[in-house]
Amino acid sequence: MSELLKGREMEKELRQKMEEAVWVARSLFERNRTTGSSANLSFLHNQSMYITAGGSCFGTLTEENFAVMDMEGRPLGDKKPSKEWPLHLGIYRKKPRTGAVLHTHGTHAVLWSFVPVRDETDCIPACTPYLKMKLGRVCMVPYEQPGSQALFDAFEKRVMSGDGYLLKRHGAVVPGADIMDAFYCLEELEENARIAWELWRAGEGSEAYWMHAD
Amino acid sequence: MSELLKGREMEKELRQKMEEAVWVARSLFERNRTTGSSANLSFLHNQSMYITAGGSCFGTLTEENFAVMDMEGRPLGDKKPSKEWPLHLGIYRKKPRTGAVLHTHGTHAVLWSFVPVRDETDCIPACTPYLKMKLGRVCMVPYEQPGSQALFDAFEKRVMSGDGYLLKRHGAVVPGADIMDAFYCLEELEENARIAWELWRAGEGSEAYWMHAD
Amino acid sequence: MSELLKGREMEKELRQKMEEAVWVARSLFERNRTTGSSANLSFLHNQSMYITAGGSCFGTLTEENFAVMDMEGRPLGDKKPSKEWPLHLGIYRKKPRTGAVLHTHGTHAVLWSFVPVRDETDCIPACTPYLKMKLGRVCMVPYEQPGSQALFDAFEKRVMSGDGYLLKRHGAVVPGADIMDAFYCLEELEENARIAWELWRAGEGSEAYWMHAD
Amino acid sequence: MSELLKGREMEKELRQKMEEAVWVARSLFERNRTTGSSANLSFLHNQSMYITAGGSCFGTLTEENFAVMDMEGRPLGDKKPSKEWPLHLGIYRKKPRTGAVLHTHGTHAVLWSFVPVRDETDCIPACTPYLKMKLGRVCMVPYEQPGSQALFDAFEKRVMSGDGYLLKRHGAVVPGADIMDAFYCLEELEENARIAWELWRAGEGSEAYWMHAD
Repeated sequence: MSELLKGREMEKELRQKMEEAVWVARSLFERNRTTGSSANLSFLHNQSMYITAGGSCFGTLTEENFAVMDMEGRPLGDKKPSKEWPLHLGIYRKKPRTGAVLHTHGTHAVLWSFVPVRDETDCIPACTPYLKMKLGRVCMVPYEQPGSQALFDAFEKRVMSGDGYLLKRHGAVVPGADIMDAFYCLEELEENARIAWELWRAGEGSEAYWMHAD
Repeated sequence: MSELLKGREMEKELRQKMEEAVWVARSLFERNRTTGSSANLSFLHNQSMYITAGGSCFGTLTEENFAVMDMEGRPLGDKKPSKEWPLHLGIYRKKPRTGAVLHTHGTHAVLWSFVPVRDETDCIPACTPYLKMKLGRVCMVPYEQPGSQALFDAFEKRVMSGDGYLLKRHGAVVPGADIMDAFYCLEELEENARIAWELWRAGEGSEAYWMHAD
Repeated sequence: MSELLKGREMEKELRQKMEEAVWVARSLFERNRTTGSSANLSFLHNQSMYITAGGSCFGTLTEENFAVMDMEGRPLGDKKPSKEWPLHLGIYRKKPRTGAVLHTHGTHAVLWSFVPVRDETDCIPACTPYLKMKLGRVCMVPYEQPGSQALFDAFEKRVMSGDGYLLKRHGAVVPGADIMDAFYCLEELEENARIAWELWRAGEGSEAYWMHAD
Repeated sequence: MSELLKGREMEKELRQKMEEAVWVARSLFERNRTTGSSANLSFLHNQSMYITAGGSCFGTLTEENFAVMDMEGRPLGDKKPSKEWPLHLGIYRKKPRTGAVLHTHGTHAVLWSFVPVRDETDCIPACTPYLKMKLGRVCMVPYEQPGSQALFDAFEKRVMSGDGYLLKRHGAVVPGADIMDAFYCLEELEENARIAWELWRAGEGSEAYWMHAD
């Protein structure tokens, strides 16, 4: 393939990744799985990280709202990335098969992060089998101020201990092979956190069942 | 009617079934009655089963996402069907008046499947009269790994014991005369599971009422 | 105004009522305030009642889904009206300032209908002031089989005892001066039933407050 | 810049504010964060207050539904403003950096207003850090009849005691630098009220945690 054709192919591939990212963002917002301006997402393309700009809203996201960084975290272009970009870059560097990362403050993921758990490296119980089939183990990350170095450090310590992450009092971080894969995994995480929360609230009767379900 | 006209008529009928199936899938997704890539649906046309392809998402479903199989479960064409196709085919073969089957992991259907019930062949109580008026009795199917032969076997054993099905820790399976009929029945199943769940959670006061409602 | 112009004016007015009715139906469906095929609505125009046809779905409603009846309940045209048309006609005949009626199985209205109340002619407490400011008093109607003469009789007995109605284990019936007015009242009824339900579930602490709120 | 060009610039700026206001209103309605005709919003432009007209519905809002008032509360033009306009004007006059105000009856903000709180000038606990990072402290305003002078007086007394407001048994009032800023703050307020409500309902286990979270 000539260099010229390769460039065109790449552009088409970038366009498709963008379109999927915008669809995922809007869908999460419109179905109340994220609110306001608190979510961010990224994907890799051509050895660069495309990440939603600081202050973006998933409900109005367009291709104009992406910042670009190289794999050392240096900005390419003038858009300012989400202040949580080190969480994203941290995953790409430690887990090379990752192609996209989603971060939202989903209501039930946040609620579940307040519940005492038995194993912080597997913090969402397998009430249904799908979370483990699709994503794997979810690791809890202790609370630190959002956007702080302390949070990035805490996250880095846990990044190899799970397939997805639940930041305490904050929200979920989910990697995937590509944006749609990360999206399907995030959907399972949020839905499983909701089922776990409701069963935990329902108490003994049903709790006994699911605590020993896996 | 000439064979030629018959073919055209058939094509129009297939197009209408497709359009209804796509509308139902998108509506279920957009209203949070299914999430991610976990739902599947099928309908019969011209002695073949049209079923959503493996890994399809109801939120982006189009006519391109359907696989076709004959009534022995042999693939026609190259699209790979949902791995849960034996559940669908099992119903069509045992209940010949079925024209469509819907399967979702609706939140409240899943939650209700964790509650101990008195009669597994009639597992959702008639808190309101509509589920029985529209669909009939819902039969619980014991838990087996999704997509496993064990689940297909467990399902087959129960298929004649109910008008709809609740797979434990998994979700609902609902047949109908056509796709819209299956959709209306699934809507009642999920809504009735939600009412039953909320009343069960509310405890003695209201439970006493609905436990003797039918 | 000539008879001819009057006819044209009327047509425009009918078109507007239709458009509002279709918008209201779709909005209620898309926001999960009604599901499946269980809701119905009507409005008056030119001494006739336009009512959604039997088996209509609010999510796909169009102008084609309306049946027309005269004020004695005789069908005009060939579309079959919702089987609950006597509830609608009963209100128009007893309350002459009514221009539209909405009936849905809203989740929280249904849930609240299971809670024991102190005054059946004012069954939703004024947790917030808006239900009374907008609609007035909501009267409970005892359970009878949907679509049965027993239900129509029970409803007729209560029709002058409230400004809106809650059919036990069934749903809400709300009249209004026109379709948008009935819609705003139904929205308040459902939202107030949800607040009342949540506070009732929360028990003593907050219940004490709202039980004496009005 | 010539006066003529300034006028054109202004018109473009007004159009953009209108478009954002309409988008925010519709988004809040479509995602069930406000219902019926109970919400209102305003923004400043060119020393005038643009506020939604009385009886407007966020689900159908257009540019036609705005009334205009000067900063003394005198109507400019013939559209009648929301009867709650004094709440809006009160904020603009006391807090000169405010460019927009949003008021909704969000379900969880209303529910939380029934819960006894320790500090009325900081009534929503910092379960998550975002409400304080984005908006600041939320001040409770005692119950008075909606639209009454008593409510406007009670509100004025509290206007300097918080960055946002929770009207008891009524809803949230949130100012912002512009409409999108107010929107992001309102989203955090409603989401944080929901988390606080669910944790409060869950009782001791998790309550102990968040009561001392900040």
